Amino acid sequence: MSLLEQIKTSKDIKQLTRKELKLLAKDIRSRIIDVVSKNGGHLASSLGAVELTLAIHYVFDLPTDTLIWDVGHQSYAHKLITGRNDTFDTLRRYKGISGFSKIKESPYDGFTVGHSSTSISAGLGVCYGNYLNKDDSDVISVIGDGSLTAGMAYEGLNQAGELKKRNLIVILNDNDMSISPNVGALSSFLSRTFSARYLQAMRNRFGSFLKSLPKIGDDIYKIAKRSEESFKTFMTPGMLFEAFNFDYFGPIDGHNLDHLIDILKNIKNPKDPVLLHVTTVKGKGYEPAEKNPVYFHGVGSFAVDTGKSKKIPNGIPTYTQVFGSYMINLAENNEKIVAVTAAMPEGTGLIEFSKQYPDRFFDVGIAEQHAVTFSAGLASKGLKPVVAIYSTFLQRAFDQILHDVCIDSHPVVFAIDRGGVVGEDGPTHHGLFDYSYLRCMPNMTIMAPKDENELVRMLVTAVQHTGPVAVRYPRGTGEGVQVENNPTPIKIGKAKVISKGDDLLIIAIGNSVNEAVKASKCLEEQGIYTTVINARFVKPLDTDLIMEYAVKIKKIITVEEHVLDGGFGSAVLEMLSDQGVTECSLKRIGIKNRFVEHGPQDILRKDYEIDYSAIADAAMKIYGKTIE
Amino acid sequence: MSLLEQIKTSKDIKQLTRKELKLLAKDIRSRIIDVVSKNGGHLASSLGAVELTLAIHYVFDLPTDTLIWDVGHQSYAHKLITGRNDTFDTLRRYKGISGFSKIKESPYDGFTVGHSSTSISAGLGVCYGNYLNKDDSDVISVIGDGSLTAGMAYEGLNQAGELKKRNLIVILNDNDMSISPNVGALSSFLSRTFSARYLQAMRNRFGSFLKSLPKIGDDIYKIAKRSEESFKTFMTPGMLFEAFNFDYFGPIDGHNLDHLIDILKNIKNPKDPVLLHVTTVKGKGYEPAEKNPVYFHGVGSFAVDTGKSKKIPNGIPTYTQVFGSYMINLAENNEKIVAVTAAMPEGTGLIEFSKQYPDRFFDVGIAEQHAVTFSAGLASKGLKPVVAIYSTFLQRAFDQILHDVCIDSHPVVFAIDRGGVVGEDGPTHHGLFDYSYLRCMPNMTIMAPKDENELVRMLVTAVQHTGPVAVRYPRGTGEGVQVENNPTPIKIGKAKVISKGDDLLIIAIGNSVNEAVKASKCLEEQGIYTTVINARFVKPLDTDLIMEYAVKIKKIITVEEHVLDGGFGSAVLEMLSDQGVTECSLKRIGIKNRFVEHGPQDILRKDYEIDYSAIADAAMKIYGKTIE
Repeated sequence: MSLLEQIKTSKDIKQLTRKELKLLAKDIRSRIIDVVSKNGGHLASSLGAVELTLAIHYVFDLPTDTLIWDVGHQSYAHKLITGRNDTFDTLRRYKGISGFSKIKESPYDGFTVGHSSTSISAGLGVCYGNYLNKDDSDVISVIGDGSLTAGMAYEGLNQAGELKKRNLIVILNDNDMSISPNVGALSSFLSRTFSARYLQAMRNRFGSFLKSLPKIGDDIYKIAKRSEESFKTFMTPGMLFEAFNFDYFGPIDGHNLDHLIDILKNIKNPKDPVLLHVTTVKGKGYEPAEKNPVYFHGVGSFAVDTGKSKKIPNGIPTYTQVFGSYMINLAENNEKIVAVTAAMPEGTGLIEFSKQYPDRFFDVGIAEQHAVTFSAGLASKGLKPVVAIYSTFLQRAFDQILHDVCIDSHPVVFAIDRGGVVGEDGPTHHGLFDYSYLRCMPNMTIMAPKDENELVRMLVTAVQHTGPVAVRYPRGTGEGVQVENNPTPIKIGKAKVISKGDDLLIIAIGNSVNEAVKASKCLEEQGIYTTVINARFVKPLDTDLIMEYAVKIKKIITVEEHVLDGGFGSAVLEMLSDQGVTECSLKRIGIKNRFVEHGPQDILRKDYEIDYSAIADAAMKIYGKTIE
Repeated sequence: MSLLEQIKTSKDIKQLTRKELKLLAKDIRSRIIDVVSKNGGHLASSLGAVELTLAIHYVFDLPTDTLIWDVGHQSYAHKLITGRNDTFDTLRRYKGISGFSKIKESPYDGFTVGHSSTSISAGLGVCYGNYLNKDDSDVISVIGDGSLTAGMAYEGLNQAGELKKRNLIVILNDNDMSISPNVGALSSFLSRTFSARYLQAMRNRFGSFLKSLPKIGDDIYKIAKRSEESFKTFMTPGMLFEAFNFDYFGPIDGHNLDHLIDILKNIKNPKDPVLLHVTTVKGKGYEPAEKNPVYFHGVGSFAVDTGKSKKIPNGIPTYTQVFGSYMINLAENNEKIVAVTAAMPEGTGLIEFSKQYPDRFFDVGIAEQHAVTFSAGLASKGLKPVVAIYSTFLQRAFDQILHDVCIDSHPVVFAIDRGGVVGEDGPTHHGLFDYSYLRCMPNMTIMAPKDENELVRMLVTAVQHTGPVAVRYPRGTGEGVQVENNPTPIKIGKAKVISKGDDLLIIAIGNSVNEAVKASKCLEEQGIYTTVINARFVKPLDTDLIMEYAVKIKKIITVEEHVLDGGFGSAVLEMLSDQGVTECSLKRIGIKNRFVEHGPQDILRKDYEIDYSAIADAAMKIYGKTIE
């Protein structure tokens, strides 16, 4: 029985010797590598946090003390030692355990996470909850240096620093990168590579100060000037956090268990907020991941010995790849096109663009709010920014899209990747709300392609459009269709009839069009003949075309990979109502108002009844039949 | 002809002597005080920025150089000297000039603003737009110290500080308060009242450094220790901005025109981002405003000689007042209730609560994202947070409501003030999107009261509810109804029939219920008898009740003070469709998808066709009649 197998709860950790803890760290790494190599997952971050996890569980009294992992993708070790070793093989699998922290999964998970930079705010809330409950338990928020670039983290620090006698311990897990190498001034500050300008400013002020000292000021100044290295030691990343009234400790080696335990014991039960700066290596203990932490940030199945992907490519590019490569075409022909991403140059497919057009590429860090308003500023000067952000993360910029882009109708293009169910990342990451939250915004145009060729046609359309426009496409491979070299734009608001039949009208959007086509084929076998319309636009709808068929066929189904509330089907209902249509029956297919769990996309589509079989079932029901 | 009257464009400013500029500042103050005393507006901020405005126009070449006012409520002087003196009497009046900066109003307005903390992001976008257009014009973003507490500002600083050779000048207009006195660690840092802890940390490190100097280190240390004041001079607010790689200048007196002009000339065309720290007095030059800057932040009409409000109170409390005072009742009876606001203790009516329950009141600064996740943390510990944020500002926290509150269904209460048209603040401030953006969120309950008594009943309902719940109410006075002492909760999802008639069914929500009732009375005179349902809930709808009348009456009108796309009427359409109803006709009344201009609420309601007359007209149209 391995040491790991003997650990049933956090309490068991406290019984181990430090030597045993180190052995346990090894067991944990093997187990993580083994399972992630099969299931995929966030390998590099979790490997980097093994010692930190053990030290926290060793020193603090969890779950009485509250531990909150920012994002939660570094919490695999934490899962393994809090009763989830037995089920760890199901990591990220359908009905299995989540890839992130989740209150409902374990009392040891202090907060449900997935999006970046929430841990300080949530931790502070727990802290105050404890305070008002007269409970002096500690709260530990572990946040990566990447997550610190989001404004939300700063808002949390700002409030935390003002309050007295609150035992919040923020552990900055600093590996000098988030998903991609970090950007921004903060990042270099943390790594002590202070800019020359900053050092100069400090040195000047320091010199004036020394000179102001009585008697021997000038001498001191001369000596001090020579002590360049010494001066640099005086400067620490802590200055930033001390400005926020945090007690700063570190930076210390986040893989040295002894040091970690000693310092955590020291800062336990603090009277004031504490920031402990820990430096770790992403992918620690697994060479391929240490060498290529970006690839191993979120990875599919791979061979443990080589680190090579086990996935056999089917030759069909993903939507992301098609987007990324077409952006280069667009940029070649239009010098006004620039690309903006929020810490996801790889995820959004813009790496090649960033290499070919470094001056026209902006990675602003995990800062979606800023990304959008920054783009509005660019657009106000005649540029054509394409902002590529996953659907779920764009939620952070709702206000900026509405207030800074839509009011003045700036021509900003939103390339919204990961629209719909995203699979194994689960409820915190599905992109199921964008139609609703974008549709209410005046001046906004919303498109969704049914395949990769339509994606490029929509991109061409979008960059020619004179107002804000969103193109929303799914995670994963396309339909395998040929992508045109010179795609033609689509007239704004123009839908397309895909097949004709008199019995039923299916109006679908985005990748759901393909499910609709499949369903129509099943239905044909049952003697039900279907007109399928590819709506292409959620806003504006092609009223003329839809009306033409709706009043004729009268039995309508809408299909979308999106929540039903306020979504695409709702837009069709509104349009029919505005047109005074009363004689039609309309069945909306989409996600019923609930959060969707994690699992393979296809299974989720079937389970949540948005795939072709759900469409066919709904159609048969309209005709009072069941599929034979 | 006054000096001000001679100023037609920014260029004219450059022709003035410094003495004339000072005279002009006086003219400008008089004009601002005069107009705001009649029209209402943001007096204190604009009075504080007069000299700064003149200095910027004097030194920079506007509008070639771009000037962006954060929020824009301090830009009255700017309006006066950029061709808007003639129309300044129409400030904030219907069809008149806006109370904020607006690209469409003047080429001198660099960006359309209204919400806080967008100026650095937008400015950086303009900067890069210029760069790519090979234009080396300067960009000046003027941001208040309050606006700096929002994460978005920090995201902008972080990116700006990384970039080289971009001529962005951020002017920090520091009056040590935003709308209310500022909160958070940053605020004290800016005012040089460094915390004892921070000074101690710096001093310790400084001591070690001095000791490390060769030979006379120890002596120096002893001398330096005695130079406490000198040490404090060494510490400056600039350290924070220098950490972000900004060149820091200041703080300088923002009312000293000579100094302002000299320093702006000095920092013009910078090679690196510059932060100029200017200290100003809110309300400067008008004694009542200097004495009470919170009151004069946004003010109604007042008597210039006394500063006293001219508004004759009608004795009917506002929704805000009813909310604020009932929160105290709730807190008395339930110790779990806490209140959270984002820099608006006055605006949300929570001042009295904050005095009575200082431990249970949290003003987190202009930080809506943090406010919401902080509340989720509180709720996770059994507290019952009531988060009071205006509808338009809550947009900033869309992701946090969805991700941090709704996924785990934390029982957070959202008290959403300023739902609907807000009046003179205009398009950036109307609360017309909340039903749509909240309705798509699983686990969310949404209510809107028709009067102040229903508001308190809904508050009682909300704090008893076990999941996330929003109560949305309008700006302004209530209906003058008696507020119950012991209001009874409303069953979740229970609507109420207000009047009965067989010809028409009007389903209304929130304050639109009163318009519906008025309309039904007009219609009765025309022989059309109406059933009016007060829906009370946008989500969940009272399906049973609505269905009962819908299938009977068949002619339906829905009414809401909200955009039509995905709003309340859309929810009713969805429900009817889900219930398989086909024989009904439904006319939705609400704001057609466009931004609503500024003006008195009643005029806007009439103009945008959401008042009783629009309802009556729609009803008559259904019957093919016009009002006789």
